[in-house]
Amino acid sequence: MAASEADHALTAKKQKLEEGDKIDSALSPLKSFKGFSFEKVLCENAKSKSLFIMGQFEGSDDKAVVLLEKMPFSSERATNYVCQDTNLKETLKNDIYGTYDAYIPVQENAVKATVIYPATEKHITKYTDQERFVVTETADLYKSITLPYLEEKEFSVQWVYNILDKKQESERIVFEDPDPETGFILLPDMKWDRKNINTLYLQAIVHKHGIKSLRDLNGTHLPLLRNILKNGSVAIKEKFDVPRSKLNIFIHYQPSYNHLHVHFMHIKNETYGFAHLLSDVIENIELKEDYYQWKTLTYVIREMDELYKRFKDAGHL
Amino acid sequence: MAASEADHALTAKKQKLEEGDKIDSALSPLKSFKGFSFEKVLCENAKSKSLFIMGQFEGSDDKAVVLLEKMPFSSERATNYVCQDTNLKETLKNDIYGTYDAYIPVQENAVKATVIYPATEKHITKYTDQERFVVTETADLYKSITLPYLEEKEFSVQWVYNILDKKQESERIVFEDPDPETGFILLPDMKWDRKNINTLYLQAIVHKHGIKSLRDLNGTHLPLLRNILKNGSVAIKEKFDVPRSKLNIFIHYQPSYNHLHVHFMHIKNETYGFAHLLSDVIENIELKEDYYQWKTLTYVIREMDELYKRFKDAGHL
Repeated sequence: MAASEADHALTAKKQKLEEGDKIDSALSPLKSFKGFSFEKVLCENAKSKSLFIMGQFEGSDDKAVVLLEKMPFSSERATNYVCQDTNLKETLKNDIYGTYDAYIPVQENAVKATVIYPATEKHITKYTDQERFVVTETADLYKSITLPYLEEKEFSVQWVYNILDKKQESERIVFEDPDPETGFILLPDMKWDRKNINTLYLQAIVHKHGIKSLRDLNGTHLPLLRNILKNGSVAIKEKFDVPRSKLNIFIHYQPSYNHLHVHFMHIKNETYGFAHLLSDVIENIELKEDYYQWKTLTYVIREMDELYKRFKDAGHL
Repeated sequence: MAASEADHALTAKKQKLEEGDKIDSALSPLKSFKGFSFEKVLCENAKSKSLFIMGQFEGSDDKAVVLLEKMPFSSERATNYVCQDTNLKETLKNDIYGTYDAYIPVQENAVKATVIYPATEKHITKYTDQERFVVTETADLYKSITLPYLEEKEFSVQWVYNILDKKQESERIVFEDPDPETGFILLPDMKWDRKNINTLYLQAIVHKHGIKSLRDLNGTHLPLLRNILKNGSVAIKEKFDVPRSKLNIFIHYQPSYNHLHVHFMHIKNETYGFAHLLSDVIENIELKEDYYQWKTLTYVIREMDELYKRFKDAGHL
């Protein structure tokens, strides 16, 4: 939880304490969801196998948020799953393959439930799902929708310049090539703990200013891109002993900030969505210098992204 | 499942039929794991919440592989999870946050079990956790390593022909265009429960024989590819009310079996690794007819894949 939320929550609780009522139900452990009235599903995630629910407990006007998550299996308990107490209901059979609904013993199949009560508006927003949509951005749509949006917003990348100018995070730099045209700084991504090699994750940030994204890359950038691919990999091999055959090296489109950067990620660290491998980017530009000015690029955007509204208002979603 | 495996399995089953024994246990639906003896865990994945187990059924020397996967929650059944029949055991309490082990009613908490029996060595290898490596397959390496490997192995896709000829799974067909050149069959992937729309996952299998993978696609296949993209999406919209802006439509390379097929997956169902979007494939071939004969293709292979050994022996890993 974020500090601000915990803060909000404490304020809410303090008010309750002053009111002197409904405290017990907020603090005593629940034995079941008896008295809970379901209001709505805030978010459903099939991949993480979670479901976030909003509702209320009997006798209170406060909202409660319930986070349900399926839990991983435990190797040590494997024999308790594949046993005679597990009932099977066949759902499909083809040759040697059979699929079943398996009802494993209830004590082996707990779900993790987190109850937030009383829940603030911020909790509710935080745990509410946003719709996602696939955008098919043709070259023309880039020019008529995406580029004007970026220009209008003028998103600041001052924090990136601070890194490049060693005003920030200079102690975190893993490797630098200072060339203003083909150089870059390599440093760990904030998501990496810098200990676990299996989750290794670094970013190469180019020294050259003004390359907003993949869309801007053309034949003139080939020396820069080849340099990052080669010397970024060499640096990671030297510093962390992870060879290139263990790395996914890619560019996101849309990027999370509009200054060219390349992700170096251990292959055990699954990538999300459709990333563009740096080696593919180089080869495509070798084939056609303006490949990324010409190509239709497909990506996923969220309902609350302003770019979503722009595409929708223009009738493209 | 890969073609080769289904083939191995069919051979194994045929031998059994000839022996005339142990057939019932191989074919009849299981009611529980009674008589199953656990041997070892092949793979444990905390992220996907799955556990792959190897063992044996009583009275048989064959191996069985059991794949257990926690299933997503269903929004529609939310009130059945947060009800008075769900027992809660508190695990942590901090201010407004409480966490619990929740024992939801057993019929609401099925685990998906896939039983592969008899399982071949290839199944066991497939479901065993392994080291992974990034392969950079140039056009030349495809010709000198990958293609000879595929030709030598002659993986059977008989089980795919059985589907195309309506000898198997015909009741599962969602849509068919019978044209021998541009037609395809659309049916649910085995991984989809066919209920939860957020995990929607179908495959389009082309009627045309002989297209082994993305590598074989060229300008002559554009009508086929465009037909799949357009009419596969239309069929999914009609049958499941899921629009194209909610679908990832892609081809895997390497594919899991060597007969061209296209994946249609709900965007909430995250894709793994570097899939090739069908719309990108079409556009690249429009740009350069032999794009996929020319392009370097990057993918991840596992230590136990024979293709890994071939690349390694040739000094490319």
